[in-house]
Amino acid sequence: MPRNSGVIDLESLEAFFRPNSVAIIGASSDATKIGGRPINNMKIAGYRGGLYPVNPNYPEIQGIKAYPTLGAIKQPVDMAVIVVPAPLVVKSVQDCIDHGVKAAIILSSGFAEIDEKGAREQTLIGEMAAAAGLRVMGPNCMGTMNARTGMIATFSSGLIDRGPQSGGISIASQSGAFGAHCFILARERGYGLNLWATMGNQVDVEFADCLAFMARDPATDVVLGYMEGIRDPRKLVEALAVAKAYKKPVVLMKVGKSDVGSAAAQSHTASLTGSDAVFDALLRQYDVHRAATIDELFDVAYACTAKKFPTEKQLGIITVSGGVGVIMADAAADAGLDLPPLPEATQRRLKKMVPFAGTRNPLDVTAQLLNDTSLMQPMFEALLTEGGYPAALCFVASLGLNPMMMERLQPAMEGIARKYSDRLLVLSILARPEVRQSLEALGYLCYEDPSRAVHAIAALTRFGQAFADTRVAKPPPRLPRGAPALHAGQSFNEVDAKRLLAAAGIPVVEEVIATTSAAAARAAAKLGFPVVMKIVSADIQHKSEIGGVLLNVASRKEAEAGFTTLMRRAKKATPKATLDGVLIAPMIKGGIETIIGVQRDPVFGPVVMFGLGGIFVEVFKDVTFRIAPFGLDVAHAMIREVKGYALLKGARGHKPADVNALARALAQTSVFAAKHADALESIDLNPFIVRAKGEGALAVDALVITRP
Amino acid sequence: MPRNSGVIDLESLEAFFRPNSVAIIGASSDATKIGGRPINNMKIAGYRGGLYPVNPNYPEIQGIKAYPTLGAIKQPVDMAVIVVPAPLVVKSVQDCIDHGVKAAIILSSGFAEIDEKGAREQTLIGEMAAAAGLRVMGPNCMGTMNARTGMIATFSSGLIDRGPQSGGISIASQSGAFGAHCFILARERGYGLNLWATMGNQVDVEFADCLAFMARDPATDVVLGYMEGIRDPRKLVEALAVAKAYKKPVVLMKVGKSDVGSAAAQSHTASLTGSDAVFDALLRQYDVHRAATIDELFDVAYACTAKKFPTEKQLGIITVSGGVGVIMADAAADAGLDLPPLPEATQRRLKKMVPFAGTRNPLDVTAQLLNDTSLMQPMFEALLTEGGYPAALCFVASLGLNPMMMERLQPAMEGIARKYSDRLLVLSILARPEVRQSLEALGYLCYEDPSRAVHAIAALTRFGQAFADTRVAKPPPRLPRGAPALHAGQSFNEVDAKRLLAAAGIPVVEEVIATTSAAAARAAAKLGFPVVMKIVSADIQHKSEIGGVLLNVASRKEAEAGFTTLMRRAKKATPKATLDGVLIAPMIKGGIETIIGVQRDPVFGPVVMFGLGGIFVEVFKDVTFRIAPFGLDVAHAMIREVKGYALLKGARGHKPADVNALARALAQTSVFAAKHADALESIDLNPFIVRAKGEGALAVDALVITRP
Repeated sequence: MPRNSGVIDLESLEAFFRPNSVAIIGASSDATKIGGRPINNMKIAGYRGGLYPVNPNYPEIQGIKAYPTLGAIKQPVDMAVIVVPAPLVVKSVQDCIDHGVKAAIILSSGFAEIDEKGAREQTLIGEMAAAAGLRVMGPNCMGTMNARTGMIATFSSGLIDRGPQSGGISIASQSGAFGAHCFILARERGYGLNLWATMGNQVDVEFADCLAFMARDPATDVVLGYMEGIRDPRKLVEALAVAKAYKKPVVLMKVGKSDVGSAAAQSHTASLTGSDAVFDALLRQYDVHRAATIDELFDVAYACTAKKFPTEKQLGIITVSGGVGVIMADAAADAGLDLPPLPEATQRRLKKMVPFAGTRNPLDVTAQLLNDTSLMQPMFEALLTEGGYPAALCFVASLGLNPMMMERLQPAMEGIARKYSDRLLVLSILARPEVRQSLEALGYLCYEDPSRAVHAIAALTRFGQAFADTRVAKPPPRLPRGAPALHAGQSFNEVDAKRLLAAAGIPVVEEVIATTSAAAARAAAKLGFPVVMKIVSADIQHKSEIGGVLLNVASRKEAEAGFTTLMRRAKKATPKATLDGVLIAPMIKGGIETIIGVQRDPVFGPVVMFGLGGIFVEVFKDVTFRIAPFGLDVAHAMIREVKGYALLKGARGHKPADVNALARALAQTSVFAAKHADALESIDLNPFIVRAKGEGALAVDALVITRP
Repeated sequence: MPRNSGVIDLESLEAFFRPNSVAIIGASSDATKIGGRPINNMKIAGYRGGLYPVNPNYPEIQGIKAYPTLGAIKQPVDMAVIVVPAPLVVKSVQDCIDHGVKAAIILSSGFAEIDEKGAREQTLIGEMAAAAGLRVMGPNCMGTMNARTGMIATFSSGLIDRGPQSGGISIASQSGAFGAHCFILARERGYGLNLWATMGNQVDVEFADCLAFMARDPATDVVLGYMEGIRDPRKLVEALAVAKAYKKPVVLMKVGKSDVGSAAAQSHTASLTGSDAVFDALLRQYDVHRAATIDELFDVAYACTAKKFPTEKQLGIITVSGGVGVIMADAAADAGLDLPPLPEATQRRLKKMVPFAGTRNPLDVTAQLLNDTSLMQPMFEALLTEGGYPAALCFVASLGLNPMMMERLQPAMEGIARKYSDRLLVLSILARPEVRQSLEALGYLCYEDPSRAVHAIAALTRFGQAFADTRVAKPPPRLPRGAPALHAGQSFNEVDAKRLLAAAGIPVVEEVIATTSAAAARAAAKLGFPVVMKIVSADIQHKSEIGGVLLNVASRKEAEAGFTTLMRRAKKATPKATLDGVLIAPMIKGGIETIIGVQRDPVFGPVVMFGLGGIFVEVFKDVTFRIAPFGLDVAHAMIREVKGYALLKGARGHKPADVNALARALAQTSVFAAKHADALESIDLNPFIVRAKGEGALAVDALVITRP
């Protein structure tokens, strides 16, 4: 298990979440003011550690002894919460350093989010803290919480009347406002919290730090994350690796998917947003559930608190409404869950109990269940014992609004939960809060909307399958010995680009440049007819438009004549062009056009794109991405991810394509790109032809652009 | 406006929803029993019409005078609710007929949903009623309601304690259990209802009848529908036309999308499910919002009660959280809404009010709005006046949980709602129910989840744009005079199929059958080289496999030789085949491969499919459907609907394709298919080549299969 092996220093974050003592620098005696709220919150929530208000003007604040300075406390202070106006923050940070504080949260705003001066001040704070080993959260953040210890170091106003319920959800939010909203949403939904942190301007501690800390924390069942931009991609990757190593589910919302969205995200934060498609691929690689809506974020996080992650995607459904049964079945198909039918014998037996029941799966007990609650136990048991589904979903409409009915059902619900404690048991139910809580206490997850319940189950199953996959990632392949280096500012014509890539182990079509018609004929004969002939000149971009490409050249004679034709056409169309000669290559027939591309992402560096060629890319944007470098396993995953994979597998009468050759080329390209990350701008292998199984794959055209 | 012009008799349905008097046949004095509940419900809800319990054993039921028989009532009875056991239902129906009852609801179950005997009984009831002009709802249904009049003719148990709140949502549900669930969901969400109906086994009145009735009802703002199968497609189409004519929004859930789903739907109802893709196309054609989840069904129906349907897709957003601003912007992009920025001058002015605000759109006022509620009015006004957006969405987090804050905001919210009563005003807010109600009373729609709010706004905008489109549908084109008839049991080889279609006005490639090599050469020369040559034989299905196709035949000499080659190959491969000769056709180069297909749908009859050819169909299933026949407008809509339309428009360096020729062919095919609906099984024009603009389109291969 990774501990402090990487760039994240997890141990030093401890003081933000489990401090033995907290000082509030700039404490206010008004419990509704920003400097008063953290104290009031910790009082309400019953924090038992040392709590030291610092304010030179009062001997006591909110009934607690106050201190004129940090130095006057004379006790070790693990964490300081700084709430003073922005111009005084640097002084407070220095005080923290001087008095050996481990962690400082700067709630004060007025830094990089405001202007250049604020940004400089913030940088100074970062440098001071780094030099002294003080960890800083913020500035312009809403602080941290630990719901179990009552350590509520935030000025979020949502807490004034009621503290958080303690539970297994830890929340990391880059945005304070969003973090506060999540806190209140969790409370309103009745979800229990563990740790909570908001990072604000992230001068030191950033989202990835908190994610990693929470992922390693044993009391955290699930990390609910919200991020806007990525500061240090290495930290993010490390944090995701920690979560994966600890098999801790992460449910993440990252905003900025659409164009307008991205513009808003950038005006809102200082950090770069990065290419969303790349980020998305990264999350998939690390089995993170990316939520598109707040509802989904909470639905899935809540689901994880059941701590049951099915490794098989079979779902058994019971319903009191045939129609809702179908809705759930449709949702299951959408979500990739299977609904295998109950065994025939079971179906016959159940049919005897309720003659007009639907008994396949969904098991439609009909509204009869509401008239005869004694049906619940045998029906549910049949599903779980004879159906053997790892997960079961039961739609009981508004049964939870009827306390009398629920009381009658209670023994059955208890019995089932006890007997099948290894299964994921989910109810779709309209219920009063106290009914829901008692069902949750038995181990049931409760959702109002049946489709949302299905999608939550599917998310748990994806986690379960990912956690069960213990295969170690394949290492990226090596570059061949003597592969030439790439330097910024180099430029390549098509032929040079292909030679460079070939030397790096990427298969390219064999080709020859001829500078006389006799040489052209010889080369063509050697390559084997038919061949393609193209004019080669760095000055001619669009060869086809000037007639600079000849296809299907079938004989020596044609090749000789072709050379003359191409040279004449090029001279006529572009008299000043320097002509390097004529390229001769075998004419590749058949195979499937794909594209392999590399782009330098501002956040993640070289990123490899794969997709099927032509219209697939242009019309359907059927492409996928990975951060370079990667191994064969990831390359195969990319190939399987595109919809056009059906063609590679052999749809439409094609023979299965040489997917292994393709995967090797992808991995090799990723390694080459990563090796030359600093010099490389982009690579474009298009078309990259994948031939039938065993026949390999070839880049027919290649473009390599270096950074200027 | 269509009234009773079609197959739906709207006037006779009146008695189900606004009866002046109701008799309960099989009334029970136990208010919790199925025969007692309707009476109890109507008492609670304050129904003021005549209420006549019928039961020979009691002089009084639930405090109301009871009658031994229907005949004993001696007053006109508009509607009878039949709750007697199944074997007694026929007798009760006869009583209704004998005493001039207009409408009978049969709540009793035990008919087609149970067994063959029940089905026969049900058929008998239907025949009796039809002969006598009695309208019947059910059997095996949950009845009807009118929330305004307190006419609650149902045994749904959800009503026992509290009646429905009256409002603008009318609910039509084929399934009783689902209808009851909807009723309770609406009540729990605080949504007001108008009419409610469940059709059960639909022996007479079916889903489409109720949909049409509600759509024409002025007190109905929106019809929320739930259906499982389609009995009479003509009725459904007519009901949809009524809703469209009255510009009444319809939000519909039809289950049975997935394979498993369809199986469940069929076991649950007797009616056919039909092809879901066809049904989907039909709903799009009639501007119905099809909901995939119950949440969506209710979100959109509720939105319609604001009765504001923007005709432009611009949205202005205010937020107290930059992050949620981005989430809403992402959702808007997903939902097809635009977020044009505020004018520069406005942005500068707002920036002065809140220096760190994001002022484009979303307008991110930041949590500052929560500290300074006086910002709400000027910010909101700037958005609506200077931004001029037809719809505005304001995210205020959990503000609605804080009564003090809401009180302070009240004047601003009132002022804005009054001044901008023409705009769609939506809040995303966590609020106590009473806060939400007071905001709704001012005219705001309130959603908890911001993404769901955006999607509801998008749905209203789609309705608005559809309602604003007053273009009359184009009539289907005519078939050419003398187009030959099609008969069941006919069979066609490729050549005959093309001739048939050509005579129906569908463009096909010109071709000639030659029976000698000399004739082949003459025909080829006449058509112009190069040509394609194919063996013609009803006995040879796969021509290519036996080498029965020659491409690029370039001269008379090649054509002569080609004839001989093809005849020899065919004889060798299939010695017993009858060879009709060799088909000669010009070789069509370029253009874009599309597919036009016709399939006979069990519910809707001939249905036309359109899509781009090859991999588009096979890998991406990028096709669309319409029920035949249709005009050029619908044909153009189909063409625009497929993703591959980008190619037809001229992507990837193609010239724009002759979309008009394609549309003509689609419409013409639909007319031909509709004309021969009884004889036709399927048509397959594949490939149907669409050439450059002005150059037309042609079926290269054609297959016509008739019903046996």
